[in-house]
Amino acid sequence: MQWVENALGRKIPAEIDGRPLKPFRGAFQDQGGGRQAAPRVPLTTVPGRIDKVVRSWDELWERLPLRDGMTVSFHHHLRNGDFIVNEAMQRLAARGLKDLVVAPSALFPVHDGLVELIKSGVISHVEGSMNGQVGVACSKGLMKKTAVLRSHGGRYRAIQDGDLKIDLAIIAAPAADVFGNANGVLGKSAFGPIGIAKADSLYAERVVVVTDNLVPFPCVPMSISGLHVDHVLTVDTIGDPTKIVSGTTKITRSPTQLQIAELAARFVEAAGILRDGFSFQAGAGGISLAFTKFLGERMAEKKIKASFVIGGTTQFLVDLLNRGLIDVVTDGQSFDLVAVQSLRDNPRHVEIDPFISYCQHARGCFAHMLDVAVLGATEIDLDFNVNVNTHSDGLLLHGIGGFADAAAGAGCTIITAPSFRKRIPVLRERVTTVTAPGEVIDVVVTERGLAINPRRQDLLEKVQGKGLPLVTLPQLMDQVHALTGIPDSPRFGERPVAVIEWRDGSVIDVVRQVLD
Amino acid sequence: MQWVENALGRKIPAEIDGRPLKPFRGAFQDQGGGRQAAPRVPLTTVPGRIDKVVRSWDELWERLPLRDGMTVSFHHHLRNGDFIVNEAMQRLAARGLKDLVVAPSALFPVHDGLVELIKSGVISHVEGSMNGQVGVACSKGLMKKTAVLRSHGGRYRAIQDGDLKIDLAIIAAPAADVFGNANGVLGKSAFGPIGIAKADSLYAERVVVVTDNLVPFPCVPMSISGLHVDHVLTVDTIGDPTKIVSGTTKITRSPTQLQIAELAARFVEAAGILRDGFSFQAGAGGISLAFTKFLGERMAEKKIKASFVIGGTTQFLVDLLNRGLIDVVTDGQSFDLVAVQSLRDNPRHVEIDPFISYCQHARGCFAHMLDVAVLGATEIDLDFNVNVNTHSDGLLLHGIGGFADAAAGAGCTIITAPSFRKRIPVLRERVTTVTAPGEVIDVVVTERGLAINPRRQDLLEKVQGKGLPLVTLPQLMDQVHALTGIPDSPRFGERPVAVIEWRDGSVIDVVRQVLD
Repeated sequence: MQWVENALGRKIPAEIDGRPLKPFRGAFQDQGGGRQAAPRVPLTTVPGRIDKVVRSWDELWERLPLRDGMTVSFHHHLRNGDFIVNEAMQRLAARGLKDLVVAPSALFPVHDGLVELIKSGVISHVEGSMNGQVGVACSKGLMKKTAVLRSHGGRYRAIQDGDLKIDLAIIAAPAADVFGNANGVLGKSAFGPIGIAKADSLYAERVVVVTDNLVPFPCVPMSISGLHVDHVLTVDTIGDPTKIVSGTTKITRSPTQLQIAELAARFVEAAGILRDGFSFQAGAGGISLAFTKFLGERMAEKKIKASFVIGGTTQFLVDLLNRGLIDVVTDGQSFDLVAVQSLRDNPRHVEIDPFISYCQHARGCFAHMLDVAVLGATEIDLDFNVNVNTHSDGLLLHGIGGFADAAAGAGCTIITAPSFRKRIPVLRERVTTVTAPGEVIDVVVTERGLAINPRRQDLLEKVQGKGLPLVTLPQLMDQVHALTGIPDSPRFGERPVAVIEWRDGSVIDVVRQVLD
Repeated sequence: MQWVENALGRKIPAEIDGRPLKPFRGAFQDQGGGRQAAPRVPLTTVPGRIDKVVRSWDELWERLPLRDGMTVSFHHHLRNGDFIVNEAMQRLAARGLKDLVVAPSALFPVHDGLVELIKSGVISHVEGSMNGQVGVACSKGLMKKTAVLRSHGGRYRAIQDGDLKIDLAIIAAPAADVFGNANGVLGKSAFGPIGIAKADSLYAERVVVVTDNLVPFPCVPMSISGLHVDHVLTVDTIGDPTKIVSGTTKITRSPTQLQIAELAARFVEAAGILRDGFSFQAGAGGISLAFTKFLGERMAEKKIKASFVIGGTTQFLVDLLNRGLIDVVTDGQSFDLVAVQSLRDNPRHVEIDPFISYCQHARGCFAHMLDVAVLGATEIDLDFNVNVNTHSDGLLLHGIGGFADAAAGAGCTIITAPSFRKRIPVLRERVTTVTAPGEVIDVVVTERGLAINPRRQDLLEKVQGKGLPLVTLPQLMDQVHALTGIPDSPRFGERPVAVIEWRDGSVIDVVRQVLD
């Protein structure tokens, strides 16, 4: 295997599984060009009313050109409540298929059973985010080929540009009609936006909507257009609605996390970002939710209205929207049922997809309209590089989500994290895996103070003398390492088990096999 | 020039302007296949907030790669109130460009001034519908190359499949933001749906939104996504709102037309089409509006609710929607301001584009979900072939609109027309130009009775003995010709001046040069 060094000094294979890799050259070095993927021209419809419904998986499979090695995609809007990925993959396994590529936007612990299909050769590898045992299996070298991790925007780009070719898209939908129009806001399994499946619906060779709620034609809103859908499979239930909601959407009660959130909000105010018409993104997760709450208090107090927000949406954002403190919430994922209802009922709460929010191969994307993004991390290093994928033990346990996209786009990107977790320092000399380069990270906020990227002298000047606990990353790291010690590095093998793509498709890092 | 005969016996050139033509083989003979056009991968955005606004046409031209022979597209939602087509083309002429291809969805009398640019060689030809003097100029052979007329669905298909390559799309929008998100429902020039420009925005090499109403980001709804837009040009006014509304949206007071509309409504009832959950399309124009009114009266009386309607929308449809007699109005064009307001405010009034309503190269389209479509015609012949493009004097005076798409898709296609106009019979032995083949036309309704296509014995059986004045087309034609005489055929030259495409891109007929 031939290795080259990318712009961050990370060693990248020149090619993997026969595919040449493009080494990362910088966050904004890609220049686009070339042509997008050309979807097939579907067969002309014969005359007569259209009904695409099939009533069983077996009937569905009979209508599809199945083959070994095909790529099957899924969205993750059902999160840990999803029933469809397991069901579909088990049934494909039962038909004797092998070497399948699974291309979900993300997997969750509910999908841990896929590990058996990886071991038995039904699944060759995953192109998508992995949260849970599938990630561990990947780390331990159980997949035949190398996994590929992409951000939400990177996944859209890869599908649009033809890097990720989907043979079969299976789209779980809580509401659909006989024609295949579908949305995520109606029915017992309503989960909010369904936009992550948009790219799959536009570009896959075959598109199937799976629903437990067949509604009269036309299903409105038509978030997924039936014009892209080949078949509509009806099932009893697509998921467990009680688990659709992310577990990370409760506001933190940890004093450390509250302190970090408050500090981030103080910074945003001190830096002059908090002004009428500003915009922000702060996802789910304890610190982000608390940040949203503290920011909202400042907005209400100063009568400041945000022009727009990019969600991941929770009740906290909905509350700000309803109180007139946000003009428009653009929403790519709902993290609780209040958000689902708001998306359904409030015309200022607008469904978007990763093309709109995050795609780099477009004439700009909404992330670039953000004044500030507040994001988490598993590790941060002295170059402000951030890791959100692996833990310090080397295990691949998290996806990228919109992290890389929001970080690259926002005018000010703030990483909030405790300085250590379970005696493992978050500040490292070098992160185990780079998800996003330091050039797109502006501020790191911990409970021990706040470090501003030296590239952002403008921010430093704005907040100096305003009582914020400013530190440098080396100071912070030394403090923390004095408390925790420096953990041993994990034992890595040579083999890259996963490729971490930057949003433009270049490779920012690889994850190596973790040896037992 | 080599000629071949198509399935309707019409003579078609084997190729035109170097492009081989596909002769029409039947309404549903096309089998799709192949790949769609691959739009360019746009240049990656540099970091920082995005502002695409340019303040003058000259500044705009400086940013675009202009060249002789390029194809420039426009939508026609502003109808006879449009200012932008003339302005843009005059300014391109002033820059010395020539041989331009104008690809509007339609032109109106307000664009008659383009004839001068055709004569001077600035415009080579038109790919799009022509209503008015541009059509006359085309008929008289003034264009350098052959014009191409497509239905709304055919235009979308041609752009999607790469038959119509647009270099520059100029999209007039009554509301847009600095990013290029735009819609048709806000602002002083609001005209309703903007969906006809959707294909242009997705596939053109360069996309410009022209607006007289720059709104704060994000412009909601985002009917045109800014991710496809290169530049936003601000101007004082994009059109004359008083002329946006079609002149054909007043209900008829002609006793003959009212009689035809009433007969069509009686037929729909007698044929058992008028039942709960049925669907229909009936456009603007005196007879269609009256039909909608009469149908609505029957629906209210019998407590029948339509599942959906495809608009062209007017106050008459909005009234039925508001009274709960229609579940969803899907709307591709507003024909009056009541319709514009309803689209803006009523979530059951849904914007669609010609892809959704009409595109044949998709997994079905909404036209195929229609139970009945009521459409007009300039001529009908004994084979039920219909002409909506030329008059009996041979002049090309009308576009196709959604005619071919709705006719092909609907379960029952009814043509309503008076049996003669100004002593010119509408019934002909052979239509001057075929827009749609008789195989997709089911019923012809005139004030002298109603003829059912012999292919539809099922319909005939349903309505027999229900007191409807059933006639045959030969009877009808003989009756009318006895009154009017048979008008002289126009003097045609050999040269085809326009190609009439069927929705699949095959050539159903050509329009020949009219000699003086």
